[in-house]
Amino acid sequence: MNVPKGLFITIEGGEGAGKTTLIRSLAKELQARGRSVLTTREPGGIPIAEKIRSVILDKTHTSMDARTEALLYAAARRQHLVEKVVPALEAGQWVICDRFIDSSLAYQGYARGLGIEDVWSINRYAIGEWMPDATLWLDVPPELGLARIAASSEREVNRLDLETEAFHRRVQEGYRLLHEQEPRRIFRLDASLAPDSIQEQAMRVLWPLQQESI
Amino acid sequence: MNVPKGLFITIEGGEGAGKTTLIRSLAKELQARGRSVLTTREPGGIPIAEKIRSVILDKTHTSMDARTEALLYAAARRQHLVEKVVPALEAGQWVICDRFIDSSLAYQGYARGLGIEDVWSINRYAIGEWMPDATLWLDVPPELGLARIAASSEREVNRLDLETEAFHRRVQEGYRLLHEQEPRRIFRLDASLAPDSIQEQAMRVLWPLQQESI
Repeated sequence: MNVPKGLFITIEGGEGAGKTTLIRSLAKELQARGRSVLTTREPGGIPIAEKIRSVILDKTHTSMDARTEALLYAAARRQHLVEKVVPALEAGQWVICDRFIDSSLAYQGYARGLGIEDVWSINRYAIGEWMPDATLWLDVPPELGLARIAASSEREVNRLDLETEAFHRRVQEGYRLLHEQEPRRIFRLDASLAPDSIQEQAMRVLWPLQQESI
Repeated sequence: MNVPKGLFITIEGGEGAGKTTLIRSLAKELQARGRSVLTTREPGGIPIAEKIRSVILDKTHTSMDARTEALLYAAARRQHLVEKVVPALEAGQWVICDRFIDSSLAYQGYARGLGIEDVWSINRYAIGEWMPDATLWLDVPPELGLARIAASSEREVNRLDLETEAFHRRVQEGYRLLHEQEPRRIFRLDASLAPDSIQEQAMRVLWPLQQESI
């Protein structure tokens, strides 16, 4: 019997958009409906990818060039993809990945000004044929996202949370551009609503995809 | 006073072509003519680039994907370029680099079959505006190059020397293709001749370039 290929879903959005909460509830719902689900995020426990990340994050590397960094992120992405995501998809699992190429495009390419086209070109090479089947963009006004993080005791403040509000606004603009360029892959969810509603919007997008893909 | 930008020269060729000998004598000759010269090779003692190389060469990484590896090489190249080559060029030095982008194109892109276009696309990003001003391709029949290595006590046999002769022939074909595509940048030298003659051919190509670049 042929195992139908699984679905590759990526979850994107600014800080405090509710990605973690959505991924948890989505996985639960899909499993309750009999689907096998793998949730992951880069570098995903893949030793080569972890080592590449440790080069990027090494505090003694004050002089790392922005393009060196982008190439290293693409390398780590490639390895996580081929070692973890692809085998799961080929075994028929749904793979839900917390951030993927669109984060690089929105954050590095657009908000930090490296250029969406340039970041695309190296990621195109890293990803090859394995583009996500669907990407959910959790769109939330930056001030609401940041207020959620400030109010939450669950999540530690990270480096990105500390960027200026102008930066987070550029990230949102970046996602909007990407959504406009690829409306058939990137779905916008209203993430200013409550978790239940976000989950409902997500299922409305995702559930019909499996019919298409069979 | 404006310092005229230096010249960026890369030396390419198969195993046993005589790159090391040429680079040594070229540097000497140029210095004798009053030029300031930096000879280098990747990763060139640049800590970030060395660390990236150590990830690539780590023997426990049996499962490294070919594209991950190509991205890592491009990242190490970028860092060596911006930290070491570019500052020297901007100070007006001649930089002679043992192997550069054309090695990736001939070995990975062509001989190993990753595709010249694909390897080009990520290296274009890594190199940006800093393409070599001139590239000397030391063309030698593979059987002669390998015989030189076997006869030499100076140089240890490395991993590439142990590839099949068919592989080395593909590398030579790869260089020939690149030379045909970019005849104004890549100069073919007959490297089957004696070191003195190779050096003479090299100087005939390189010396006039400085007039052009002033």
